[in-house]
Amino acid sequence: MAKPTPLSGFPEWLPDGRIVEQHVLDTLRHTFELHGFAGIETRAVEPLDQLLRKGETSKEVYLLSRLQEENSQIPDKQLGLHFDLTVPFARYVLENAGKLAFPLRRYQIQKVWRGERPQDGRFREFIQADIDVVGAGELPYHFEVEVPLVIAEALGSLAGIGLPPVRILVNNRRVAEGFYRGIGLDDVEGVLRQIDKLDKIGPEKVSGLLVAECGATEDQAKACLALASISGSDVGVIAEVRALAESHGAVTELLETGLGELEALIAAASERAPGVVVADLKIARGLDYYTGSVYETVLVGHEQLGSVCSGGRYDTLASDGRNTYPGVGLSIGVSRLVSRLLSAELVRATRSVPSAVLVAVSSEEERAVSDAVATALRARDIPVEVAPSAAKFGKQIKYADRRGIPFVWFPGTAGEDGVVGADQVKDIRSGEQVDADAATWEPSDEDRWPQVVPVP
Amino acid sequence: MAKPTPLSGFPEWLPDGRIVEQHVLDTLRHTFELHGFAGIETRAVEPLDQLLRKGETSKEVYLLSRLQEENSQIPDKQLGLHFDLTVPFARYVLENAGKLAFPLRRYQIQKVWRGERPQDGRFREFIQADIDVVGAGELPYHFEVEVPLVIAEALGSLAGIGLPPVRILVNNRRVAEGFYRGIGLDDVEGVLRQIDKLDKIGPEKVSGLLVAECGATEDQAKACLALASISGSDVGVIAEVRALAESHGAVTELLETGLGELEALIAAASERAPGVVVADLKIARGLDYYTGSVYETVLVGHEQLGSVCSGGRYDTLASDGRNTYPGVGLSIGVSRLVSRLLSAELVRATRSVPSAVLVAVSSEEERAVSDAVATALRARDIPVEVAPSAAKFGKQIKYADRRGIPFVWFPGTAGEDGVVGADQVKDIRSGEQVDADAATWEPSDEDRWPQVVPVP
Repeated sequence: MAKPTPLSGFPEWLPDGRIVEQHVLDTLRHTFELHGFAGIETRAVEPLDQLLRKGETSKEVYLLSRLQEENSQIPDKQLGLHFDLTVPFARYVLENAGKLAFPLRRYQIQKVWRGERPQDGRFREFIQADIDVVGAGELPYHFEVEVPLVIAEALGSLAGIGLPPVRILVNNRRVAEGFYRGIGLDDVEGVLRQIDKLDKIGPEKVSGLLVAECGATEDQAKACLALASISGSDVGVIAEVRALAESHGAVTELLETGLGELEALIAAASERAPGVVVADLKIARGLDYYTGSVYETVLVGHEQLGSVCSGGRYDTLASDGRNTYPGVGLSIGVSRLVSRLLSAELVRATRSVPSAVLVAVSSEEERAVSDAVATALRARDIPVEVAPSAAKFGKQIKYADRRGIPFVWFPGTAGEDGVVGADQVKDIRSGEQVDADAATWEPSDEDRWPQVVPVP
Repeated sequence: MAKPTPLSGFPEWLPDGRIVEQHVLDTLRHTFELHGFAGIETRAVEPLDQLLRKGETSKEVYLLSRLQEENSQIPDKQLGLHFDLTVPFARYVLENAGKLAFPLRRYQIQKVWRGERPQDGRFREFIQADIDVVGAGELPYHFEVEVPLVIAEALGSLAGIGLPPVRILVNNRRVAEGFYRGIGLDDVEGVLRQIDKLDKIGPEKVSGLLVAECGATEDQAKACLALASISGSDVGVIAEVRALAESHGAVTELLETGLGELEALIAAASERAPGVVVADLKIARGLDYYTGSVYETVLVGHEQLGSVCSGGRYDTLASDGRNTYPGVGLSIGVSRLVSRLLSAELVRATRSVPSAVLVAVSSEEERAVSDAVATALRARDIPVEVAPSAAKFGKQIKYADRRGIPFVWFPGTAGEDGVVGADQVKDIRSGEQVDADAATWEPSDEDRWPQVVPVP
């Protein structure tokens, strides 16, 4: 067959890129588990009616059909690939509610699919890493403080490999709605829709749209823009919003509730993750379906990449008529992060294979000797492979070098006197070669497994 | 919405089941990496022509279409979900051949999809864990010995959690073909097809079919059945096959080549994984497309589950006209294994959440005190969660108990004299409660993370 070409929007990495991705996934998982989140995995498919339950017909869902369907007597229910992990999680919660303990802290790291036009950082198949806390009937506000701090820690623990710092931008539906209603604008969704365009079209045009589309006066529009211009990572922002509201006689109970929540989040964050969480009153996306806090996350210096982690609080993640399950969660766009780390050459793996050691083979007859060395090293958790052929040692060293394997091991051979010499191990980076015993030799911690490191 | 019901053939686990599955996946991955296999992941979809390249129209492929396709001006290439990891790996090798180093040792752990009728141990979505070694142009036989031994080690390292012992049954295309041709039967595929029915319909009917369908004489049919009856885990089987061939004057060069290979495999296996690898000359499945060794694996005591790990050697895994890539590999049916481990209650997780410790909260005002304890414990890699509400301590202990969290931590509180008492930690299994310092306290290794253990 002809050489296949990549499918646009379906990213794949070479083995060294996969080492970076795997490191990111392992790090996220470890942080989530340290915080007591239990991992689950849901099937890749959901019934179509479930996927479109929230009227999200704009999502580019991939539908499934069976090649041999015509042979089947009972046609299958229409299935589609999930486009996020929230819809399947909500279904999982309802399906297993009787067997789950609430509040449920769960993480979920899986691929999702969207049939969108691919562009930079936007894929048709990509990995998401989600954490959510879901309650049965109720869910205290403090989880809205906790969840973004777990994300801050998870992404922060990738700083060591070269991930740029992140800013988690937060807003609160109650603050926005309370303010708009306070100044007399009741088309809250409409106002949010216009505010969401600020970055794209600028304040002047947004102001015009607020007047034309939402029935705002010039003064009301000005107040909305003033609110949207407030941001900051300390509790001073709360006073700023309150002062603005007071100047418009717009202090409502809803606004005060929202400000109290936002203040708790900012206060806790400025202590536990200083500088990471920033109140940004212009965040409007998602405020139409989130009911409390809302989060977006940018990579500092890569803001144009868009949000790498978004989420919020929903009073009704799921409901089966009898019970309602409120939740709060965030979703990391892992593929977007990893593809940027790789394409911008911010990080690299120290080698492309797990092996720390290549055991050389002097002749095919003596392959068993090399196999025995490998077994002894592996017994002490050292990743090893044995040379594929008894080629000249120079060629075997080249095999290791090409893959970044740091050590080549030479089993001792019998001299003319019949006495078997000591094994030797060569660090092919320095060229240093020393006697070694497979029962005791150890590589350094850095050399044992491939490392993921920042590119200087 | 109404309570959703499971989709037949799409298995999902509760959080404690997922801990078992994750442990299996981690163990396999660790063994593969210890042996120098590099992990890759390929996209879930392949162009349909690629999926059907080997004429496998009998495979129940899931095709994809986009919900909004009619709005799209350029129709997409027809895509389908991959039904195994070999086809996508072959495509990956060709696509990236210039950037990969051969022989390439790769593992790949991913979901695959088949639109088959679901039955016990047979799913529509399931996880496979594959290892393959692929050469450019050539691939020495010793990899056919190595690969099943890596699998033996990987599955053997799950014995500790309660996986029953495995038997890897091996055969060799050259032995079968050499023998059949030696006795004068040239319809090798036809004979293999009948031999494959032995377990289902028994020797008498197979014999009849060999005569009726493959033009065999009674004597030739008898010889085929005699060959199929040979099995054993020591090199004695080689002599047995040779003696049978000699008695029929059927020793061919091809047979001798095959016997030499099979002998090398059995000899190495009897030393490195005694009793695990068994030559079984009746294995016929896959011999039509594998060109050398062929492997099937059964769980001892669960043989009716079918093979949990199959594979073999193919002289042409992939070919782009200029280069040919021979390979040898095995694929573990992880979901089949895990579903049996769980449904037969062979293993269990010691708890359903990662948390080793629940930090109690005395009042919502003092939640920050509990958060600080949690942070201190996590800094030393102890998984912790903080109680969801400042309920009565009895209720908080019940929260831990329900999830299997072994320890509840009580931050010290100020007495009437204003002096803050020491923190205490309670092992809720024994009821023992002692003073503890979050900066130094450690759980035992067994208690730190959830363990997967055999059910007695």
